[in-house]
Order: sequence, then structure tokens, then C-alpha cells
Amino acid sequence: MIQDLAAQVATGNRRAIARAITLIESGRADHRAQAQEMLGHLPIDRQALRIGLSGTPGVGKSTFIEAFGLMLAEAGKKVAVLAVDPSSARTGGSILGDKTRMEQLSRHPNAFIRPSPSQSHLGGVARRTREAVQVCEGAGYDVVLIETVGVGQSETMVAEMCDLFVLLLAPAGGDELQGVKRGIMEMADLILVNKADGDLRAQAIRTCADYAGALRLLRKRPQDPDDFPKALTMSAYDGVGLYEAWDEMQTLANWRKDHGHWEARRRSQAVGWFQEEVQSALLARALADPETKDEMERMGQAVAEGQVAPSVAAARVLG
Amino acid sequence: MIQDLAAQVATGNRRAIARAITLIESGRADHRAQAQEMLGHLPIDRQALRIGLSGTPGVGKSTFIEAFGLMLAEAGKKVAVLAVDPSSARTGGSILGDKTRMEQLSRHPNAFIRPSPSQSHLGGVARRTREAVQVCEGAGYDVVLIETVGVGQSETMVAEMCDLFVLLLAPAGGDELQGVKRGIMEMADLILVNKADGDLRAQAIRTCADYAGALRLLRKRPQDPDDFPKALTMSAYDGVGLYEAWDEMQTLANWRKDHGHWEARRRSQAVGWFQEEVQSALLARALADPETKDEMERMGQAVAEGQVAPSVAAARVLG
Repeated sequence: MIQDLAAQVATGNRRAIARAITLIESGRADHRAQAQEMLGHLPIDRQALRIGLSGTPGVGKSTFIEAFGLMLAEAGKKVAVLAVDPSSARTGGSILGDKTRMEQLSRHPNAFIRPSPSQSHLGGVARRTREAVQVCEGAGYDVVLIETVGVGQSETMVAEMCDLFVLLLAPAGGDELQGVKRGIMEMADLILVNKADGDLRAQAIRTCADYAGALRLLRKRPQDPDDFPKALTMSAYDGVGLYEAWDEMQTLANWRKDHGHWEARRRSQAVGWFQEEVQSALLARALADPETKDEMERMGQAVAEGQVAPSVAAARVLG
Repeated sequence: MIQDLAAQVATGNRRAIARAITLIESGRADHRAQAQEMLGHLPIDRQALRIGLSGTPGVGKSTFIEAFGLMLAEAGKKVAVLAVDPSSARTGGSILGDKTRMEQLSRHPNAFIRPSPSQSHLGGVARRTREAVQVCEGAGYDVVLIETVGVGQSETMVAEMCDLFVLLLAPAGGDELQGVKRGIMEMADLILVNKADGDLRAQAIRTCADYAGALRLLRKRPQDPDDFPKALTMSAYDGVGLYEAWDEMQTLANWRKDHGHWEARRRSQAVGWFQEEVQSALLARALADPETKDEMERMGQAVAEGQVAPSVAAARVLG
């Protein structure tokens, strides 16, 4: 039955994909085992372009995803949209992966949209999202967009599971949160300054120039071709600059594939996930003992209040 | 005897400080226990200004530390200089904390200089350095400089144990490695563009303006007063701009103390160290079993070569 599910996923059946991801999201031990088995039966010779996408509310992320996704879907590409939104950070419900904000795209036969798994623990969200990406790739999707709203460490997590990281910004001076969160700008392969239309067009061009200047100060890494990372303007609302953005993403992806960086990045990410899962499981095992769990919370509190030194507290928990 | 050592450290005796740090650097279980005891006997009402300092070879870091350190020492402040340099990253021997490069400072009675602990494992270096910082504080030092050469994740580690993070750069266009390593610029509270003298002065001013522009794009965090983070020029060789840099550091430190961010940062760092040490110890325990250690290495290799999925590999190691 699990093999059947995997086979159906491989044909691209959207209901099967949804069921597979629901299975992945379950924490039950038997479901975990089934999920591993299912993942093991998916075709391994398929690759999607995994694009991480970060942008605070108000920059026009849903408008962008809908317009960009439709452009690709209409061109015959299969596009999946997954959301990362740890529920511990949710205020007033998640708007990510919300089909009502991407209605046209959600109805397109070449598209698949999935809201965030409802986990408060970032590590739990990470694993489930990575495995959901695997399912989408096994189902033959060409592009998997992984969107994050910019809370906590979610960008770092997304950057560690994507091939390209795209940052969406609004022109400076608007109502949205100003400036870019620390640590995010330097993760970006591409910065897209949205809303380059109407009254905001001139400001968008200036904002884009500012970020382009900042990006030029970053040291080139082996996986960065000339001219990358770069900043572009666009108007998701008017549909301007979307094809250019896609073209840049493909240029970068192809260059990295030609120069060995693509596979190197994926391998390095895989090793990182392996190590994280081992560490996660070791901690979970230790915390399965109620006494250890209590001690961990008590000592964490004591350290936070400056009553115990960190090393001493750690020794007590594990003693 | 351990209490005696702690008492001597508390008087500021430099030989005792050196012995205490040597004890901390030892991995032996009995030494670890003695080190914990010694740390527990140090005065807890003393605080130093912990300054993280990053700069690639060639930016003039040793010249800066010597000049800056002497300025403070001559003003009656006690200055410790610790180095972070994981030996796995060393090429041709470490030049950090090298007293021959900071000869005058190393001879000043108000200064204490210590090379990096020789550990290849970054976590090992982290713990030892944090505890060495505690020793210097317990010995009554006013300023502890923690310098890193910019390899691997050493800046992240240093940023997590300092109160202020300072990035040293050279004017663009010189022989040194160009540009700033990704992720580092956004950690900085202060960027100092060195070598603003002679032929390079004009370029230093331009480089400083470029970085100041980039810093303005970052979103303000609660712990950032107006005008921070900022970029300044200086000439460590000519002794110009050192007092200004110190003044800015104090302005920032005092503002954070007045607004509750100082303690909050230290508490948050302490909780992070606590969690890291628990995780570290759990992993060390698991790897103490030779079979598990072998499986971990084998599976890590298999994942790196794309032969096994990360989740499956993790399950095998811990099964």
C-alpha cells in the first residue's frame, strides 16, 4: 500500500502527493516508518529547482508567487509551493501557502500548494519540509518554491534546503518593515525589489541600487559566478520582471551545475541534515526520561536567570 | 589547591591566569572537574567588556591590537587578548595571539595575551575560550579582546561570546582578500577600515562610505541605538582613530546597559552555551561506543556520496 502511494506520487497525482505529505507530517512512529519506506520508493533520478523565498508581510510575496508560478505553469512547468511557518511564531493564523491568496495558481493543473506543517519546533518543521520537497521532486515537479515569512531562524532553515535563495523586498519608505533582517541579505543569490510600478517605481530603482551596492561588498565564493549575487526590480502586480528573474535563476543554476557546485551544495546539505537528525534524535531520547526533561527545563531557567553557570548546569542535566 | 589558584587569579596574577587557562584547555576528566571548581570560586561581581574582533590576514589586526591595547593599558585599563584559531584551519602555524607580533603589549603589566587553544574541533575551542574569558574577568580585566582570523565558523562562535563584535577591513583594492565574508558584515556592531594613511587614505574613506551604506540597509534591532552599527576609518600604524573607536564601543556598551540589552544578551548567550554543551555531551557519549562511532563515519560518508538518504542514515546510526 505504501508502494502504491509512492507509485501514485510518481505519476504526479496531486491527491497522492497531499496524502504522502500528510503521512510525512505525522509524528507517530509507525507513520514515520511508513514515510521512510514511501520516500525510499520514489524515483531518484528526478531533480527540481528548489527555490527558497523570503519576504516579510507586505512585500507582495503571494502576488509574486501567484504571478511567477502561473508564468511557469503556463509554460508547461510543474510548480510546487511549500510554506515554512513555525506555529510558535504565528500571529493570527498563517497566511503562507494560503490558497485563497493564490487562487488562480492553486487551481492550475500544473501547480501544487501546501501550507506549512503545524509544528512549533523548528527542527520538526525542517524535517517535514525537506521530505515534502523530496515528494514533490519524486512526483516530477520542475520547480519547488519554499516560502518563509521571515520569523526567527526560518530563513536559515530554508537556505539549508534550497538550491537558490531569493529575497523579496519592497521599495524603502513604504509601510512595510524597513530594511532587511540581519543575516538574510548575505544568504541571497537574488534580491527582487517588488512594486516597481506607479508612484513607487523611482524608489524601487533606488532601493535596488542600494542593495546592489551592498552585495558588491561581499567576497566572491566559488559557487558565485560573475555578477552574482544580484538585485533586480520587478512588479509582480503588473507582471513585469518575472521572466527576467526566472532567467537569472536559470543562469545561476546552470552555471553551478556546469562547475560542480550544484551537486556539492546538495551533498553538503544532505550531510548537514544527517548530522542534525542524529543530534535531534539523541536529544529527544534524553528528554524522553521525565526526570531529565524536568532537569533540562529547570537548569535552562536557572541559567537564564544567571543563577547557574552553563557548564555546571549542563553537567547536572547529564549527570 | 584549586581554591588557591582561584584566589591567585582573582588578584590578577598573570602566572596564575596562565595556569588556570592551561587547566581549562585540558580534556582530562579530572582536569575538567578541577576547572569547573576553579571557575566556581572566581569572583562573580566583575565584568569585562568582551570585544570580538575579526579580520583576515593583512588588514593589520596585530598592529591594531597592539596599538589599541597599549592605549588602554597606558590609561590604566587591564586588557586581555585571547585568540580563536581552530587548528584544523591552521596553515603554516597560527599567527593569532602571537606575542612576537604584539611585543610591546605582551610586556605591559596591564596586558595578558594568550594564543588559541590547539583544538581542531570548533566546539572544543568554543568552550575553552568562553572559560578563558571567565578567568580573565575573574582576574579583574576590564577588556577582553577575542580575535579570530576569519576561518570557517569561527566568527559565529566569537560573536556568540562577546558583547560587541568589531570587524577590521582594509581599503578595497589592496593585496588583501577582497570583500567581506558572507554572514560577517551583518554581525558587526562596528566596522573599522584600517590603513587610512598615505596612499590608501582616499580609498579607505571610500571603502568606509560603501560599508556605511550597506549597514544602513539593515533593519534596526532593539539592541541597536541610532547610528549603530557604524563604520569608521583609522590608521593603527599612525595611531589615528583608535580613541574614537574606543569611544564608540563605550557609547554602544553603555547604551545597551542602560536599556537592558546588555544583560539580556549575556543571559541569552549563557542559555545557548548550556544547550550546546548538553548537545555536545550527548553526541560525545554516543560516539564513545566504537560501533556507533564507526557507523556515524560510514553513514556520513555514504550520505556525502549520495548513496543513502539522510533520514535513513540517521536511523541506522541510532538503531
